[in-house]
Amino acid sequence: METVAVNLGERSYSIHVGAGLLARTGELLRQVARGDKVTVVTNPTVERLYFAALESSLKRSGFKVASVLLPDGEQHKNLESLSAVYDQLVRQRLDRQSTLVALGGGVIGDLAGFAAATFLRGIPYIQVPTTLLAQVDSSIGGKTGINHAQGKNLIGAFYQPRLVVIDVSVLQTLPKRELVAGMAEVVKYGIIGDPELFDLLEKNLDAILTLDEPLLTRVILSSCADKARVVEQDERESDLRAILNFGHTIGHALESFTGYERFLHGEAVAIGMVKAALISRAQGFCDERSLARIRTLISRAGLPAEMPPDIDPRGLVQSMELDKKSSEGKIKFICCTGVGATRFHWLSPEEIVTALASNQ
Amino acid sequence: METVAVNLGERSYSIHVGAGLLARTGELLRQVARGDKVTVVTNPTVERLYFAALESSLKRSGFKVASVLLPDGEQHKNLESLSAVYDQLVRQRLDRQSTLVALGGGVIGDLAGFAAATFLRGIPYIQVPTTLLAQVDSSIGGKTGINHAQGKNLIGAFYQPRLVVIDVSVLQTLPKRELVAGMAEVVKYGIIGDPELFDLLEKNLDAILTLDEPLLTRVILSSCADKARVVEQDERESDLRAILNFGHTIGHALESFTGYERFLHGEAVAIGMVKAALISRAQGFCDERSLARIRTLISRAGLPAEMPPDIDPRGLVQSMELDKKSSEGKIKFICCTGVGATRFHWLSPEEIVTALASNQ
Repeated sequence: METVAVNLGERSYSIHVGAGLLARTGELLRQVARGDKVTVVTNPTVERLYFAALESSLKRSGFKVASVLLPDGEQHKNLESLSAVYDQLVRQRLDRQSTLVALGGGVIGDLAGFAAATFLRGIPYIQVPTTLLAQVDSSIGGKTGINHAQGKNLIGAFYQPRLVVIDVSVLQTLPKRELVAGMAEVVKYGIIGDPELFDLLEKNLDAILTLDEPLLTRVILSSCADKARVVEQDERESDLRAILNFGHTIGHALESFTGYERFLHGEAVAIGMVKAALISRAQGFCDERSLARIRTLISRAGLPAEMPPDIDPRGLVQSMELDKKSSEGKIKFICCTGVGATRFHWLSPEEIVTALASNQ
Repeated sequence: METVAVNLGERSYSIHVGAGLLARTGELLRQVARGDKVTVVTNPTVERLYFAALESSLKRSGFKVASVLLPDGEQHKNLESLSAVYDQLVRQRLDRQSTLVALGGGVIGDLAGFAAATFLRGIPYIQVPTTLLAQVDSSIGGKTGINHAQGKNLIGAFYQPRLVVIDVSVLQTLPKRELVAGMAEVVKYGIIGDPELFDLLEKNLDAILTLDEPLLTRVILSSCADKARVVEQDERESDLRAILNFGHTIGHALESFTGYERFLHGEAVAIGMVKAALISRAQGFCDERSLARIRTLISRAGLPAEMPPDIDPRGLVQSMELDKKSSEGKIKFICCTGVGATRFHWLSPEEIVTALASNQ
């Protein structure tokens, strides 16, 4: 088991990464929990695969375990599911010493985290992410929330978990498409600030995608550490943390514009990163060779690297303006300056439309 | 204009109290706002009386003003109204530089504050409370939230406003019953830590209830300062802040048990305070004379001081256990040790049932 510390004063916590950690969740939670009541929020797919192992680990450590099942899928990350979670938490009489456990991917983690942030004005929760995307990104840093019909994550809170338990072995049952989508965020950490990780991916991509556990642990650990360092400097995204949104301004818009049905988050982000790299090159921030490396690694990972021709750039940019990164009309765009560094650049919606309309 | 500072590091803010302050809201907000967009959340009654004055003040200071109207009443402080507010904020394209203004009583303040806490993971908001209850209590300290069908304020967040503007002149249009209900919280500050305020109330109750503005300003200012000092020491209610719930454990249960229809919040709290004082006397914490002073002042203010005989103590205590003050079965009860000080005491539900069944 490897551990990354997230240092946020009284909101600090540990991220544990390793094979088979699900069976140790009880003992890890015992070190940080106050009360004995635990409610696990999960979905039917993950429940079938992993709830029993998690539950027996929690019970062995003396916890009383209940669960809430939510329907699977991004379209259910909404106020209705949240309301269903509240109803269960009330029914199970959770109090401020109780712990919520988010067992699942990003949808479960974001929603359960937001429920924890807002039930009784905040109860403790931990993340047990079961997708690569959740393991390297959404389970870390305390961004919680739900979607609004008009945009992704428009409702939410910054609320840190007490613990993140990452069992890399659960990726063995993850559908290949989701594994690949999760790689988009790993590639992102390489681009925005970790050239060594980017090199490691270039050299070992095939072994990683065939789930070599020591390599997976290394890659996930680096990703978590990269994210933790950014979150430590800017927990509430007043400035620096926005670099984690590299590729996401376009990616989020693409997901929203296509009704959250056509692309997985990572796939949309992959397209968004290539577009962001193209814009960075056009603005003179990123050299040709770095752009080529980014495009190539994304393609090799099996991720989409081109904007589909049927997407209307103008419609896409309209979805973008509601995003949290906009301010009084202009959009704060995250550009890369090669592999390993970024800079902000304010762009008008018109400039983005023009960039999206071209593949150069 | 008098000012109380709430010192909470980067979340610090000022409370301004005075006659006619509504007309100065724009200039006061200008000192703390970043962007120009403002959305005022209010209800039809308050809108008719005060929106025009507030709007013209905001516009004079260069703000672009929109509004959201919510139906009046505690029964609308729910997920449905919250959802309606989100829809409007999305439609009005508010961003993180925009400001929400809560113009109204506690329902508006709590709900608008929670919307601000959770829209885009947190946007700035200010409180412009128009009831005595909201002016001395709910607008200060950052407790925001909504009710769940099973209990009051079960869903919410700690989220501080950027400013509180208290115009004592608006109390001239407040229904007498609501004014009196608000006095319950003022009496509470006297009991829990401000014997001078309690004395002042005993000596000037009639002038205060007939809305002498200098006296009102003094009483409201003291109440706000008392609350600010407690919140500064324990923002998230880990311990000390719970003393502000003196009388509320029973008060909340009484409201919930009677479907939020029979008692105003302050009326329920008044009964709860007398009961808490009786329990404190029975436990040997509070002397007979202090108990008599508390009962007398509450009665003189026109507040109820007796538990109505038709309320079943056992049913009431069952409503209590879901409250946030319970932990693994026992209830952390706030007792008074005379006029001006409190102490905690853990009580079993049975002990409370027994105390409620007696008027001694």
